Amino acid sequence: MDNFSFYNPTRIEFGTGKERLIGEILAQHGIKKVLLAYGSERIKGDGLFATVSASLNEQGIPFVACGGSVLDSAKAIAAGALYQEDVWDLFVGKGQIEAALPVFAILTLAATGSEMNSGAVVTNDDTKEKFAINSVHTFPKVSIVNPALMQTVSRDYLVYSAADIIAHSIEGYFTAKVQPKIQSRLVESVIATVLETTEQLLADPADYNARAEFAWAATLALNGLTYAGTSGFGYPNHMIEHALSALFNVPHGAGLSVVMPAWMKWFQGQNPAQFERFAQQLFGLNTAEEGIAALEKWFDKIGTPTRLSQLGITEADLPAILENLKGNARWFGLAETYTQDVLATILRNAM
Amino acid sequence: MDNFSFYNPTRIEFGTGKERLIGEILAQHGIKKVLLAYGSERIKGDGLFATVSASLNEQGIPFVACGGSVLDSAKAIAAGALYQEDVWDLFVGKGQIEAALPVFAILTLAATGSEMNSGAVVTNDDTKEKFAINSVHTFPKVSIVNPALMQTVSRDYLVYSAADIIAHSIEGYFTAKVQPKIQSRLVESVIATVLETTEQLLADPADYNARAEFAWAATLALNGLTYAGTSGFGYPNHMIEHALSALFNVPHGAGLSVVMPAWMKWFQGQNPAQFERFAQQLFGLNTAEEGIAALEKWFDKIGTPTRLSQLGITEADLPAILENLKGNARWFGLAETYTQDVLATILRNAM
Repeated sequence: MDNFSFYNPTRIEFGTGKERLIGEILAQHGIKKVLLAYGSERIKGDGLFATVSASLNEQGIPFVACGGSVLDSAKAIAAGALYQEDVWDLFVGKGQIEAALPVFAILTLAATGSEMNSGAVVTNDDTKEKFAINSVHTFPKVSIVNPALMQTVSRDYLVYSAADIIAHSIEGYFTAKVQPKIQSRLVESVIATVLETTEQLLADPADYNARAEFAWAATLALNGLTYAGTSGFGYPNHMIEHALSALFNVPHGAGLSVVMPAWMKWFQGQNPAQFERFAQQLFGLNTAEEGIAALEKWFDKIGTPTRLSQLGITEADLPAILENLKGNARWFGLAETYTQDVLATILRNAM
Repeated sequence: MDNFSFYNPTRIEFGTGKERLIGEILAQHGIKKVLLAYGSERIKGDGLFATVSASLNEQGIPFVACGGSVLDSAKAIAAGALYQEDVWDLFVGKGQIEAALPVFAILTLAATGSEMNSGAVVTNDDTKEKFAINSVHTFPKVSIVNPALMQTVSRDYLVYSAADIIAHSIEGYFTAKVQPKIQSRLVESVIATVLETTEQLLADPADYNARAEFAWAATLALNGLTYAGTSGFGYPNHMIEHALSALFNVPHGAGLSVVMPAWMKWFQGQNPAQFERFAQQLFGLNTAEEGIAALEKWFDKIGTPTRLSQLGITEADLPAILENLKGNARWFGLAETYTQDVLATILRNAM
């Protein structure tokens, strides 16, 4: 087990009605003024916006509202607001984050794990590149996770989220050079929970307990817990998927469910024992191939894509994807392994 | 899944050599003066005391040293130092902890999980009663967990620690009225790790990786992670064990390995599904009885007691134990269920 630091100062308030506490929480933190960033007009239809407004008004805390891709851009805004130069410096390694405005979150979709980590990924719309920041200052102070607020999520976004959580779990699980067994067990706990609760939610979207366990699995998948003590891992699936979503406006999780089986088929020979373990622990099967096939079949079953054609992407699009991946692979630190030939092989696995 | 708050602001510094950072860490936290509480003279023999002294001297931080049962008493001292009345008020619910001096820990034994939680248990030597405090202010600021510092732990204390970690895991796992499956999976991950690494360490105490995974399992067993979203649980095994260690000076883990199988035999009918799951997931067996027998057999195998006689306790001692348990059961909030008759039944299971 590698040396590590584990520090996660985010308080989680989990459960029904917790969003009503937001005003009190902000007041406890001495907050006098709020920028309320929200992702979707859905929150005006289902009453969440009204609840939050009322809570802030009750505490006499004024706010300005704005829309966008919320949690990560909130962290970016928080860091950029206290940085004197261009905020893009922080994303391309030209500047350091020394401070950030405090960020508080109310989750309406469980997938990214951003509510309990310090990272943020944003896209440069001009260059189609994705960049990330990561700083102890950009941990949300408090994140409210009320599974009941996620009930109105579409079927599509539920299954894309399932793919996202599984991707967060398997990137380290398969690629880490140092992978303690306790971490593998924790990862399997998260994945098993997603496999089970996704199906329960497809059958009954109002199943609160299934929604709650799904949400907590999403949070745990990327809050540092399952990566503690590991090293030498990469994020090849995310690397490849970023090209798809940048070029073709594909939902993140949908791109991941196409990439994962394709990547696994190429990578499995580099960690056969772990792929066998995956097959056994999660599907009760024996071989690496059986495990990969079972995951692919499960993605088909829940209705998230497993072929590029389902995303409207064909052989003709390959050159553009490979070109975009040149930059991506460098940025992800994977250019040496993920040559154009390797990437072409993986992408062809998905055709 | 029940509503919950999850907040754990303790930073963990894990791995070889981390204890050398203590001076720097204290300086970063603006600490000017230290009370160094240590548990055993072992740290003078193996060089840890020297390392810590040197690190503090390097930062110009003076300290006073004292011995005792360290981590929990450090938290008690931290809270009591800023409390105007008698510190015992805080333990018996007469006073509230509003503030505490900052606590920093360097672990030399992995068992209690106290390094990453806010609780402290102390014994009133006169009345033989145990009491606890719990406050957001008594989370250690930083805990250093270097598994290499645990290599000199005796064989006995290794196996007692294993029992302690398993007890922390199973109290909630079996008794909770609301027990989300994701939590059961995380608990099983912790227990499976202890089952495996304890045997590896008995075969080779210098196995750093086994020691590291054992240590991290100990931390995770009681840092709040496996209890999030659960409710209605109790600590009956700890309740019973506290009487044994108060009256007979029995090591905590040794008492627990006697109590657990005895308690399970009595309790299993109240949660048959979970006992079957325990047997299947951890031992590949089928029935509740088989799972309990397997755990008892494992305790025998690693050399931690499973019978009261091994602790020098006989039928003649029963009345005194039952008398002590009257107070304990009330304090643990379990008096209604754990009548004298029930407790006698459980204790006789251990004879």
